[in-house]
Amino acid sequence: MFRHFLAAIAAVVVVAGCGRTGRDTADLHLSQYVDPFIGTSGMGHTFPGACVPFGGVQVSPDTDTIPHNVAGKYQADVYSLCAGYRWDDPTIVGFSHTHLSGTGHSDLGDILLMPTTGSLQLNPGTADKPENGYRSRYTHDSETASPGYYAVTLADYGIRAELSATTRTAVHRYTYPQGAERHLILDLTHGIYNYEGKTLWASVRMVGDSLLTGYRITQGWARENYTYFAISFSRPVADYGYKEKIRSAYRGFWRKFKTEHGFPEMAGRGIVCWMDFADDSDEPLVVKVGLSATSAQGALANLRAEAHGKSFEDIKAAAEGDWNCELGKISAQGTPDELKMFYTSLYHTMINPSVYCDADGSYRGLDGGIHKAEGWNNYTVFSLWDTYRAEHPLLLLMHPERARDMARSMLAHQQQSAHGLLPIWSLMANEGWCMSGYHAVSVVSDALLAGADVDGNQAMEAMVSTSNVPYLEGVKAYKELGYVPLEDSSCGASTTLEYSYDDWAIYKAAKALGRDSLAKQYKLRAQNYKNLFDGSGSFAKARYRDGAWKTPTDPRQTYGEGFIEGNSYNFSFHVPHDVIGLMGLMGGEDRFLCILDTLFSQPLDPVYYADNEDIEESCLIGGYVHGNEPSHHIPYLFQWTSDPAKGEYWLREIMERMYRPRRDGLGGNDDCGQMSAWYVFSAMGFYPVCPGSGEFVLGAPFLKEISLSLDNGKTFTVKAPEVSSQNRYVKAVKLNGQPYSKRYITRDDILSGGTLEFEMTDVPREKAAPSESDLPYSLSLEK
Amino acid sequence: MFRHFLAAIAAVVVVAGCGRTGRDTADLHLSQYVDPFIGTSGMGHTFPGACVPFGGVQVSPDTDTIPHNVAGKYQADVYSLCAGYRWDDPTIVGFSHTHLSGTGHSDLGDILLMPTTGSLQLNPGTADKPENGYRSRYTHDSETASPGYYAVTLADYGIRAELSATTRTAVHRYTYPQGAERHLILDLTHGIYNYEGKTLWASVRMVGDSLLTGYRITQGWARENYTYFAISFSRPVADYGYKEKIRSAYRGFWRKFKTEHGFPEMAGRGIVCWMDFADDSDEPLVVKVGLSATSAQGALANLRAEAHGKSFEDIKAAAEGDWNCELGKISAQGTPDELKMFYTSLYHTMINPSVYCDADGSYRGLDGGIHKAEGWNNYTVFSLWDTYRAEHPLLLLMHPERARDMARSMLAHQQQSAHGLLPIWSLMANEGWCMSGYHAVSVVSDALLAGADVDGNQAMEAMVSTSNVPYLEGVKAYKELGYVPLEDSSCGASTTLEYSYDDWAIYKAAKALGRDSLAKQYKLRAQNYKNLFDGSGSFAKARYRDGAWKTPTDPRQTYGEGFIEGNSYNFSFHVPHDVIGLMGLMGGEDRFLCILDTLFSQPLDPVYYADNEDIEESCLIGGYVHGNEPSHHIPYLFQWTSDPAKGEYWLREIMERMYRPRRDGLGGNDDCGQMSAWYVFSAMGFYPVCPGSGEFVLGAPFLKEISLSLDNGKTFTVKAPEVSSQNRYVKAVKLNGQPYSKRYITRDDILSGGTLEFEMTDVPREKAAPSESDLPYSLSLEK
Repeated sequence: MFRHFLAAIAAVVVVAGCGRTGRDTADLHLSQYVDPFIGTSGMGHTFPGACVPFGGVQVSPDTDTIPHNVAGKYQADVYSLCAGYRWDDPTIVGFSHTHLSGTGHSDLGDILLMPTTGSLQLNPGTADKPENGYRSRYTHDSETASPGYYAVTLADYGIRAELSATTRTAVHRYTYPQGAERHLILDLTHGIYNYEGKTLWASVRMVGDSLLTGYRITQGWARENYTYFAISFSRPVADYGYKEKIRSAYRGFWRKFKTEHGFPEMAGRGIVCWMDFADDSDEPLVVKVGLSATSAQGALANLRAEAHGKSFEDIKAAAEGDWNCELGKISAQGTPDELKMFYTSLYHTMINPSVYCDADGSYRGLDGGIHKAEGWNNYTVFSLWDTYRAEHPLLLLMHPERARDMARSMLAHQQQSAHGLLPIWSLMANEGWCMSGYHAVSVVSDALLAGADVDGNQAMEAMVSTSNVPYLEGVKAYKELGYVPLEDSSCGASTTLEYSYDDWAIYKAAKALGRDSLAKQYKLRAQNYKNLFDGSGSFAKARYRDGAWKTPTDPRQTYGEGFIEGNSYNFSFHVPHDVIGLMGLMGGEDRFLCILDTLFSQPLDPVYYADNEDIEESCLIGGYVHGNEPSHHIPYLFQWTSDPAKGEYWLREIMERMYRPRRDGLGGNDDCGQMSAWYVFSAMGFYPVCPGSGEFVLGAPFLKEISLSLDNGKTFTVKAPEVSSQNRYVKAVKLNGQPYSKRYITRDDILSGGTLEFEMTDVPREKAAPSESDLPYSLSLEK
Repeated sequence: MFRHFLAAIAAVVVVAGCGRTGRDTADLHLSQYVDPFIGTSGMGHTFPGACVPFGGVQVSPDTDTIPHNVAGKYQADVYSLCAGYRWDDPTIVGFSHTHLSGTGHSDLGDILLMPTTGSLQLNPGTADKPENGYRSRYTHDSETASPGYYAVTLADYGIRAELSATTRTAVHRYTYPQGAERHLILDLTHGIYNYEGKTLWASVRMVGDSLLTGYRITQGWARENYTYFAISFSRPVADYGYKEKIRSAYRGFWRKFKTEHGFPEMAGRGIVCWMDFADDSDEPLVVKVGLSATSAQGALANLRAEAHGKSFEDIKAAAEGDWNCELGKISAQGTPDELKMFYTSLYHTMINPSVYCDADGSYRGLDGGIHKAEGWNNYTVFSLWDTYRAEHPLLLLMHPERARDMARSMLAHQQQSAHGLLPIWSLMANEGWCMSGYHAVSVVSDALLAGADVDGNQAMEAMVSTSNVPYLEGVKAYKELGYVPLEDSSCGASTTLEYSYDDWAIYKAAKALGRDSLAKQYKLRAQNYKNLFDGSGSFAKARYRDGAWKTPTDPRQTYGEGFIEGNSYNFSFHVPHDVIGLMGLMGGEDRFLCILDTLFSQPLDPVYYADNEDIEESCLIGGYVHGNEPSHHIPYLFQWTSDPAKGEYWLREIMERMYRPRRDGLGGNDDCGQMSAWYVFSAMGFYPVCPGSGEFVLGAPFLKEISLSLDNGKTFTVKAPEVSSQNRYVKAVKLNGQPYSKRYITRDDILSGGTLEFEMTDVPREKAAPSESDLPYSLSLEK
C-alpha cells in the first residue's frame, strides 16, 4: 500500500466556517475524497445532493414519487425511496430541499423545483413515460456530486442544473439551452412518502417580480411538518400561474379573477406553480431558496442572512470550504479507495442531525409553538435508536459545541413534550415514535458526563421523567416486573434490554451529580436485563406478565419472538453496560465466545430474512447483521474475553464487506450517520461500546494513520503503519510511546492529545486471560 | 305614547369596560331591552349566543351542521345556517366559539363543546334522530339570551348550559343532573359551512389535569383559518380520549400506545375528544376557553389575562357591564317594543367587526405572518360592501377609537396584501373576496377626514394602490373606458357605480391632504357613473367593451343585467356622491321623483325574485329591497328634491315593516350590523348617505328622544315629541333652538353637542323647491 498524501501540519489557526481552533486542514481539500453517490443504490438510502455540514437544507434530486396507493407499492416505495433518489431510476422529477440521510422510513422532499423547456407540463409524469410530465431523463455521465455541490444535465430539456446550499438556504443554477422556453415548476404536491392529500395546505405569493414566498404543511411521518420558504430569482419572473390539482371548497373569487394566470397569491391543497423567464440573456437562472419552520418572514430573513449578495460560485465555494474544514478535523492516510470510503463515511456523519432554527434562533418546538434558542442552535432529525451508539459519541468528541446544542435541543423537546419525554425520533418538531427505548438519555448522560454545558438538574429531571412515562411501551410493567412483558409489547424482550442500558446511563449521570437515591434506583433498573436470561446459559428470551417464558423460541427468528430489527442471537448481546454480567448469564467465557463465534461464522438460513426489506444475503456475516444497529458493538465484545483477535478478524471483515466505495456499497441503511460513524470509529481502532462510560473499546485500526484535530487544540493520532487486510491482527499497542495493555482508551486519553500506536501482524494473538484492571467497563465489576 | 324611562344624567365619569368619558349610563341597564333572538329566524342570520362588544369570541349554540354534500342541500345550508343557529331547528349540536353576525355566506363555528350524560356518543347525530348522536333536543321555554349571556337546558341530558364571554375568551357553566355521567365533547370536525375535510388539521394536548390546549386549521370561506385554543376546567379531567374520524397516514406509534384513551396529545384531520369529570360534587363544571389566531401560548395568555381567577358570575357581570356601558352611549325613549327594536339593533351594530389580536397585540396578518399591534387593536370581519354605508359611519361617530383601530387594521391588511389591496371582505386574516367595489377606501377616507389618528400618506397610498389593481374585477378596463364592461364582469354596471363612489372617497381624501394631482385624477374617476346612462333619462345600463349598451335590458331583473344583489331599478340610485348629477342624467327632478315613487309603490312581480334566496315578498316595499344594501340610502334621496315628505313616508314604512321585534322580524340579513346601523341612524332621523361627505342627510326620527353621549364628553340629543306612525312627517326642524332649513346636519354639528328638534305631524309638507345651499352634498354642486 502507498501513501496517497501526507497530512500537512500547519500552525494553530482559527478556521472560519467550522468555528474551530485547530490545524488549518481545510486547504487539504479532503472533500475530494467524498463520493456522495456511495449508498445511493441498494441499502444505503443516502442522497447525492448538496448541503453544508449539519445544514437544515439538503437540496437533492428526487427520482420518483410514487403515491402509496399504487397497489402493492406502498411498503416498497416508503422504504426504497427514503432519500428521494435511487441510482437505478431513469428520470429526475425535480430538486427538493429536505432529505433524510440513510433512514429506513421516509418523509420530507419539500418544495420541489424543476426547470423545463418546451410545452408547459404541470404533472410529474411517470418514469416509463417521462414525456408525459415535467420530469426528465438523465444519465449518470452528466452527473457530478461533491460535498456542497451537485450537478446534472436534464436530458429531455438540455438544461444544466447545479445545486449548492448554506445552512438554511439552497441555491440552484439552471443553464437553459439558447432559444428555448425557460419554465420553472414549483410543485407543492411533491414529496417523499407522498400520497394524495399529504399536503395539508400550501400557500404562495409573488412579492414583486423576483421573490416568491409561501409555505406548506404536510402530514406524513412527521405528523405535521411546516416548511416556509422564500425563493428569489436572479431575473424577473416574466409570467406565472398555478394549477390547482385539488379544488378549494370556496370559489367566491372565481368571478373576480382568473387565478390561473398572473394572480400574485394562491393557496390550497394541490398547488403547482409555474414561472416563465425571458430568453434575453445567456446568463443562467440562479434561484435561491430560504427555508424556515417558523414563518415566511423567517425564511426570507434566512435567505437574506445567508445568500443575499452571493453568487452561485460564492455559495458553492463557501459550502466546499465548510466541508473541507469539518472533514479536515480528521486527517487520514490510505489508498484512494480507502480515503474515499473513510471521508465519505465522515461526510455522512455530518448530514443529520440538522439545524432546525432560523438565523435568529427562532424555531418551531414540539409543542407547536415558536421558541427562541438564545446562543445555541436547535437541531432535529434525531434517529436515536440508531445514533446513540456511535454517531452521537463521535459528535461529542469532534463537535463538542454542536453536541451541546443537540443535548439542549433534546432537553427543549422534553420540556415541550406533552409526555415529558426526551426525543425518540425527532423529526421537524414532531416525535416520530420510531423504534424502541429512550436512548436520548444515553446522549444526554454522555454529554453531561463529558462536561457539556447543559443544565445538570434539568437534564436529570428530563431523564427521570422520560424513563417513567407509564404508557410508553411497557414502562409501567417494566418498573413493576423488571421486564416488558409480551402482553405490553411485541418486542418486550429487546425493549427490556434497551431500557436496561438506558437506565444505566441515567444511573451514571445521577451518580456524577451526587443524586445518590436516584443513582441507587437506576443502578437496580440497569440490571433488569438479567430478567430475560433463564439461567440455562442461553439467549435472552421474551416473557409474559406472569413470569412465564415464551416457548418455544428460535433465537434466529427476528419476528414474533419479542425482538425488533434483530433476532435474539444478535440482540442478546445488547448489554453494553455489563458485558461481564452478561457473560455470566450466558454461561461464562467459553460459552460466550462460542456464541459470538457462531454468530459470525454460521450462515443464517434465508428463511429467516427472505421477507425482510432491510436484510439481504450480502448484508450478512454469518448470522451477524451489520445493517441493523443492535449488533454494532458485538465485534468489540471479544475485548472482554481472552480472545480479542477473533474480534479483530471480524472487524476487518465488516469493514471490507459492509463498506465498499460503490453506489451500492453500504451493507445497510446509513441511518443518519450511525453506520458511517461506526466505520469512522472502527477505522481508528476503537469504538464507544457503552456511551456514558467515557471509554472507547479497542479494536483494530483500518488505516495506517489517522489524526484527530480536536476543538481544544490538541491532536490525537492513531498509527498502524503495517496494517493491511492480511495484517489485521493487533500484536501490541503503545499509548504515547508506552506499552499499553488496557483493552480501551478513555475520552480523556484522546482529549489530552497524543499517539496511539498499533503494531499489526497477520498472526492472531494467542488467547490469554485479561487482567481485570485492563478490561473495559462493566457494571458487574464496579466497586 | 308614554315615556318608558328617563335617562339619568350623571356627572362626567370614566366608565370602566367601554373606556369612554361620558355620562354614566351603564346603570341604566339598557341591555334589558336587547333581545338577541331577533333575527334568529328567517332572514336575519343573527346568533343568540354570548359575546362582549366587538369581542373576538362569540360563543353560541349551533343547531345544525349538515355537510354540503347532502344532495341539494349545499346552497340552502350555506345560506340559512350562517349564524349556526336557526330558531326553528329542534336540536342543539353544541356550543362553538366563533360566529358571524347576519351574513349571507357562512363560516366559523370553531371549537365546539357539548356536555352530555349517559352513554358516550362521539358523532353529532341528526336532527331527526338526535338520540343517535351527542346533540340534544331543547325547547325555547328553557332558553334565555341577553347581551353577554345565553342559557339553555339540554333536554336529552337534563343539563343546564350557560355561556358568557370576554373579548378573547368564553366561559361555559354546565350543571349536570345529579348522579349522571359527566361527559364533555370537543368536536374539532364541527363547523359552520362544514363539509368532510373542512378541518385541514387539528391538534390537542392535555397539560396537567385541567388544561387542554390545541388548534385547528380550517379551509372554508376563510381560505385558511387558524384557531388556537386553551381550555381550562374548574375540576380535574378524570378520564379522556379521542376518536380519529379520519385516520392519519403514518401510524407508527400504534405499537407503542393506545392513543384512544388517556394519551395526552393527538392530532389529525378528524379529531373528536371526550373528557369525563367525576360526579363528586354538586358544583357545576365551569369551562373557560381562550382563543387566539397566533399560537396556543397566545390563547393561554388571553385566557389568563381575561378569565383567570374570575367566576362565571364575574365574567357574566363584566360582559353585561360592558354592554350596558356601550349601549348607554345612546339613551332613547320609546315603548318597550320600540326600545327592544332600537337597542337590539344597537347591540347588533357592536358584534362585528371583531377584535382579532391577542391581549398583547399579536395578531395573524393577511400575509400569514404574526404581527404586533402596538397601542391599538387589530380587527377582522369587515363586510365592507355592506358596512361602509352606515355601520362604519356609526362606529366613527360613537366609537372613534375603535374606528381608528379598524382603519389601522385595514391599512395593515393592505400592506400585507399580495395585491396591495385594502380589504374587500376581511375574514380572520383572509380576504374573502365577497361582493364588489373597494369600499374600504370609503371607510378609510371618512376616518381620515374625521381626523382619526391614521397616517395620512400611508392611507393615501393604500387607497391609490387599491384602486389601481388592474386584475381586480375590471379595474384595468374601468380606467381605460370609464366603466367595467360586461366582458370583464357579469356585474360590470353595478361595479362601475361602486368604483365611481369609491373614487370620489379617494378624491375627498386627496383634496384634504393637498394631493392636488391625485384629487384631480380621482374627481374625474368619480364621474364614471355617468358612462352608464345613455342620455335617454333611463336607468343605468351595462355596456360592452366596444361601448355598445346591453340590449334589451330589464331594470327589474337582478340577474344577467350587469348588476349584483340589486336590479337596475334600485342600483341606478347608487350615486351617493352626486345625487344632483344623477338626477340630471335621469331626466331631471320630476322624472327622478317619479322613478323613486314607483320604486317604492309598484309591486315587483314574483318572477323577479322567486329563485332568490335572499328576497321574499315580506322583504319588499314595492320594488324596493331593503335586505340588499344598495338601496339603503334611497329613501333619503328625496331630500335632494322638492318632496322630502315622500321619503319620510317610506322611511316609516321601512322602519315598521323591515324591523319587527320578533325572531323573524328582520327584512334581510343583518350583514354584520349594516341593517341595524341603518335602523339606529334612521331612528335618530338622519343617515350618512355619502360617507366621506361629513354629512348626515335628514329623514324622519322614529323615537321621541334619543341622546348620544359622545366620546368627547358632549351630548347630542334628537327630539321628536309628537312622533308616531301617523305623525311620521316632519313639519319643522330646529338645531340648538334655531329654525333649521338645511336638509342635512354635519358630523361637526353632532360632535359639538346640542339638540336637534323635529316637529312632527301627520300631514306631509307641501312640495317646495329647496334652496341649493340647503341641499346635501353633491359633486356637481361643488364649487
